[in-house]
Amino acid sequence: MRILLTNDDGIYSDGLRHLLTALSPVAEVFVVAPDRERSATGHAITLHKPLRAEKMNIPGTETEGWKTNGTPADCVVLGILGIMGCKPDLVVTGINAGPNLGEDLTYSGTVSGAMEGALFDLPAFAISVAAYADIDFTAAAALAARLARQIDSGLQLPLGTFLNVNLPNIPAAGIKGIKITSQGRRRYEDRLEKRIDPRGREYYWMGGSLLQMDMPPETDGWAVENGYVSITPVHMNLTDYDTLHRLENWDTGSLLG
Amino acid sequence: MRILLTNDDGIYSDGLRHLLTALSPVAEVFVVAPDRERSATGHAITLHKPLRAEKMNIPGTETEGWKTNGTPADCVVLGILGIMGCKPDLVVTGINAGPNLGEDLTYSGTVSGAMEGALFDLPAFAISVAAYADIDFTAAAALAARLARQIDSGLQLPLGTFLNVNLPNIPAAGIKGIKITSQGRRRYEDRLEKRIDPRGREYYWMGGSLLQMDMPPETDGWAVENGYVSITPVHMNLTDYDTLHRLENWDTGSLLG
Repeated sequence: MRILLTNDDGIYSDGLRHLLTALSPVAEVFVVAPDRERSATGHAITLHKPLRAEKMNIPGTETEGWKTNGTPADCVVLGILGIMGCKPDLVVTGINAGPNLGEDLTYSGTVSGAMEGALFDLPAFAISVAAYADIDFTAAAALAARLARQIDSGLQLPLGTFLNVNLPNIPAAGIKGIKITSQGRRRYEDRLEKRIDPRGREYYWMGGSLLQMDMPPETDGWAVENGYVSITPVHMNLTDYDTLHRLENWDTGSLLG
Repeated sequence: MRILLTNDDGIYSDGLRHLLTALSPVAEVFVVAPDRERSATGHAITLHKPLRAEKMNIPGTETEGWKTNGTPADCVVLGILGIMGCKPDLVVTGINAGPNLGEDLTYSGTVSGAMEGALFDLPAFAISVAAYADIDFTAAAALAARLARQIDSGLQLPLGTFLNVNLPNIPAAGIKGIKITSQGRRRYEDRLEKRIDPRGREYYWMGGSLLQMDMPPETDGWAVENGYVSITPVHMNLTDYDTLHRLENWDTGSLLG
């Protein structure tokens, strides 16, 4: 089995190293990852400038990988079309330091790497631990290796669908189980601070506290908050079919003047 | 009516100017747009550095707007929470030079501006013309103004749903009608070129020709290719519910070891 591994925290991150160490006994792992943190990049790709890939030893491992100046989605394209020279059997992204739940999916660089894998019609999953500090990557790394083995053994996902996996930040023994979930909603408030720089000019900085809401039991956010692993099957068809059917009665003729 | 207007081609682009000119008789328009092209940025937001907003006259108009160093999604947050000081009645993004069809939605900066509006539970639409050169923005600008009026008059969209509007690049008189569509699939091939720089080092550049496929008649791509305006209702729930229901039989216990 050949796995293409990327992330958005960068090639030097602990989460990537843990994942690489866990996946290496399962598969031949090709690491193609950003040279720096590329969080909250969404599904960005780099069209307007050259991309570089440099071979290096992944710190803390015996494995070589490629660090690039691209986004996680760039890394997947570079890996498949440039570096590997063939399609991997699986694309894995993470382990992300921080949850990717609810609306985080549309912002997340980690998730965008798995999206790009799914656009190549490859099996893919993104894996994250729901904490920003004192993160225990052990349970996530072990689960990723087992999930990779299951996919290798024939776990079928439809073309274009990938799995978004989130774990609570607790030791494996404390995890209550696994929930197959839907994407919840996850809102932020007070997201923008206005400040004055040393030269007296205004600037803004995004931040904001999380305002949890709309996280009923079947959702990703509920599962992780309640001590379960959340696995959400994700696709990139953003059509709101309910509204589509409702709008079929819309008299659009007047829009054309 | 108050409209927040942004785009991903930048505040100096022709598409923005045409849209601003068409919307100004309909509403008070607040322009908050990137200081340069920010295409293919996906739904990226800027968390790790300060954002600046500078007031300027929009070239070719009598209107002032704010140019920022942010992404389209940043511009929407800056506009709502920083500059306007209140929520607009509508968020509009465009007019994009180039189609936003099928998988383009996940990459598109223009679409990400409308996504961000929808995350604020505001009505929003993104509007694009399906051409990269010799673009006639007239029909799109007029349609945007009429659509804004309809939304002001009570056209209801569910919270979190926005409209992705694409026009063929033909004069209004040639447009056959409006189709309410679903998101199709739109693939690219040969996306990566390997080159050698003047110092003999390898680099990569993304490009690639479009490989059209899976564009049946109910989709956005079919509509635009056949001379119709495509309007797709879009939401950000990426859950693949079919696969979710299928995976409910998945024996996940072994994943926990």
